[in-house]
Amino acid sequence: MAARLLIEYDGGGFVGWARQPGQRTVQGVLEEAISRITRREVRLTVAGRTDTGVHARGQVASHDGEPAPAPALNGVLPPDVRVIESEPAPDGFDARRDALGRTYRYRIFRRSAMSPFERGRALHWPHRIDVEALHACAAALPGTHDFTAFTPTQTDHVLFTRTVLQAEWRASDDDLLELWIEAETFMRHMVRTLVGTMLEVAGGRRTGESFRRLLEGARRPDAGETAPPHGLYLESIRYR
Amino acid sequence: MAARLLIEYDGGGFVGWARQPGQRTVQGVLEEAISRITRREVRLTVAGRTDTGVHARGQVASHDGEPAPAPALNGVLPPDVRVIESEPAPDGFDARRDALGRTYRYRIFRRSAMSPFERGRALHWPHRIDVEALHACAAALPGTHDFTAFTPTQTDHVLFTRTVLQAEWRASDDDLLELWIEAETFMRHMVRTLVGTMLEVAGGRRTGESFRRLLEGARRPDAGETAPPHGLYLESIRYR
Repeated sequence: MAARLLIEYDGGGFVGWARQPGQRTVQGVLEEAISRITRREVRLTVAGRTDTGVHARGQVASHDGEPAPAPALNGVLPPDVRVIESEPAPDGFDARRDALGRTYRYRIFRRSAMSPFERGRALHWPHRIDVEALHACAAALPGTHDFTAFTPTQTDHVLFTRTVLQAEWRASDDDLLELWIEAETFMRHMVRTLVGTMLEVAGGRRTGESFRRLLEGARRPDAGETAPPHGLYLESIRYR
Repeated sequence: MAARLLIEYDGGGFVGWARQPGQRTVQGVLEEAISRITRREVRLTVAGRTDTGVHARGQVASHDGEPAPAPALNGVLPPDVRVIESEPAPDGFDARRDALGRTYRYRIFRRSAMSPFERGRALHWPHRIDVEALHACAAALPGTHDFTAFTPTQTDHVLFTRTVLQAEWRASDDDLLELWIEAETFMRHMVRTLVGTMLEVAGGRRTGESFRRLLEGARRPDAGETAPPHGLYLESIRYR
């Protein structure tokens, strides 16, 4: 018996997903809640490890044993994490290994005056944005590329090629611009560094051609800044 | 010379719009910012006085004299209030008197597990909702009615008839249900008490017919509970 959890969290109050001693982490808070309800020590495996301040709307995690009922978990969890589903999964289900794709969304709020309702929920970017240039950058992403330039130099990653399945900028209204990107797996800071670099193209400080060349194994200093975490959401995980 | 301000605020940190000594109010915070920038004592007139905890996305206020530039105001305002526009208005412009209609929105989040991103932004209502019954209630609202039942018994209001111009429930996705309502003017707690009473109809605890009868001058105890303030947004003000 295994359990599969669908989880939503506001990353603003966490130093990321991964359990760290003495720190408030999503994994720590969830494992404590599940252990408390099931009266067993539980270890979670997660589909997408998120960094400090990164949000999730459709995170998936798994653990061995019986699922705890979602309402019971929500009864003991703090309000910045909610378990949307907690269901039985096939024996051996592993949220990380079985995932075929991860979709992230990065939200940019463009209006000159920031919205009180977007604080901590979107990057405020009241600067010039050439939306056509963003579309051209996104169009270059699908496929298998060497993303060495888009992850920190000091890294635990060993392989630097990743396969992007879809990437698209969407303007949901006049003020919001969102990158939706799905890949089989991501490297650390990859979406945020892609966004920071694309914003340099969109502001005229870098050419679209130079952005495309970065996908061929350039080095970290060649790419742009890492956009802040509070605009980033892990949206969903795809399974077979 | 007069000035017209378009204002957005998260009501969660304010005891409402209206200035009160020793309290954090939207009017107080804004008047202080405008006075600081313009170096004159400024008094604001507002289109829609909002209560403690009620949000605004399109509040309008006016004052005599030159407008202060919006970026300068936002530079000194706390981040839970933003001035979207601060523009010259025709001499004698009065945000309250000149308003032809006020539109409020009330947001209800229906999913069993609350969303961390809807905390303080929507009423969590994971109970039964007969959406057709809500539509029937809303359809009864347009026109001029006696709304005595929908405002507190202890009141400063003298007239209890109000003219509703539009009222509609909209389901923006599976989890969100929103009442959009425009009236020439509203009474205190009117939208929230309409929502609380309509939710009783939608839950089968009151008939649609009894709701419609409340619009003919029933008394406050005849209506339902006042829904909490954090689901309510002053969306926009209409002028000629």
